[in-house]
Amino acid sequence: MHGKMAPVTADPLPPATPPATDACCAPLTRAAADPETARELARTFKALGDPARVQLLSLVAAHQDGEACVCDLTGPVGLAQPTVSHHLKVLVDAGLLTREQRGRWAYYSLAPGSLDHVAHGLRLVAR
Amino acid sequence: MHGKMAPVTADPLPPATPPATDACCAPLTRAAADPETARELARTFKALGDPARVQLLSLVAAHQDGEACVCDLTGPVGLAQPTVSHHLKVLVDAGLLTREQRGRWAYYSLAPGSLDHVAHGLRLVAR
Repeated sequence: MHGKMAPVTADPLPPATPPATDACCAPLTRAAADPETARELARTFKALGDPARVQLLSLVAAHQDGEACVCDLTGPVGLAQPTVSHHLKVLVDAGLLTREQRGRWAYYSLAPGSLDHVAHGLRLVAR
Repeated sequence: MHGKMAPVTADPLPPATPPATDACCAPLTRAAADPETARELARTFKALGDPARVQLLSLVAAHQDGEACVCDLTGPVGLAQPTVSHHLKVLVDAGLLTREQRGRWAYYSLAPGSLDHVAHGLRLVAR
């Protein structure tokens, strides 16, 4: 947090005598993702950054009516219920799944539009 | 540490047709992502699970010709060059960026098709 000026010492790549044309730096042709958007997207991607969570999301989506309970999921992913519940909580917290308690079971569904939102974010970021 | 993925004896994914065994439970209407696909996707998502990396990807894409060097990027993300280089390496290792050394600078571009691949993966997972 030294402010915006480059440090005077220890810069490993000083911009000494750059070739006039294509050296540092290319111009921006449009605005990049703002920090708030980047944070929000990264949060979602982080939730998806685990193979078990990708499988769980996929399993929920593949179930009839796009809905499954923990009891549907532990077998297919080969993990204990507490572990599965933890992963499901991460996906709910990231807004990718919704959770509804009905009787003794909690049921999980894809949060409407959440993956479209991610895909849209990707396009925003990189196009 | 102890609760690693359990048995590797059989593919944990049930067939697309509903198994007759599950008592609680909603049937699958199609096959879910297989473990290998889930692993590969999670690896990519994990690389995107950091706000600085989302911003860097976006910045690279927003530069003229979709190409930028570290020197273009440190200022906008407000991080030191070694940190930026580390994040760029993670993105390269995940197949999201390509890196080309030209003279004293390394130039980064979006890996062709990589974000389409991510978007396709998202659809695979959840549709």
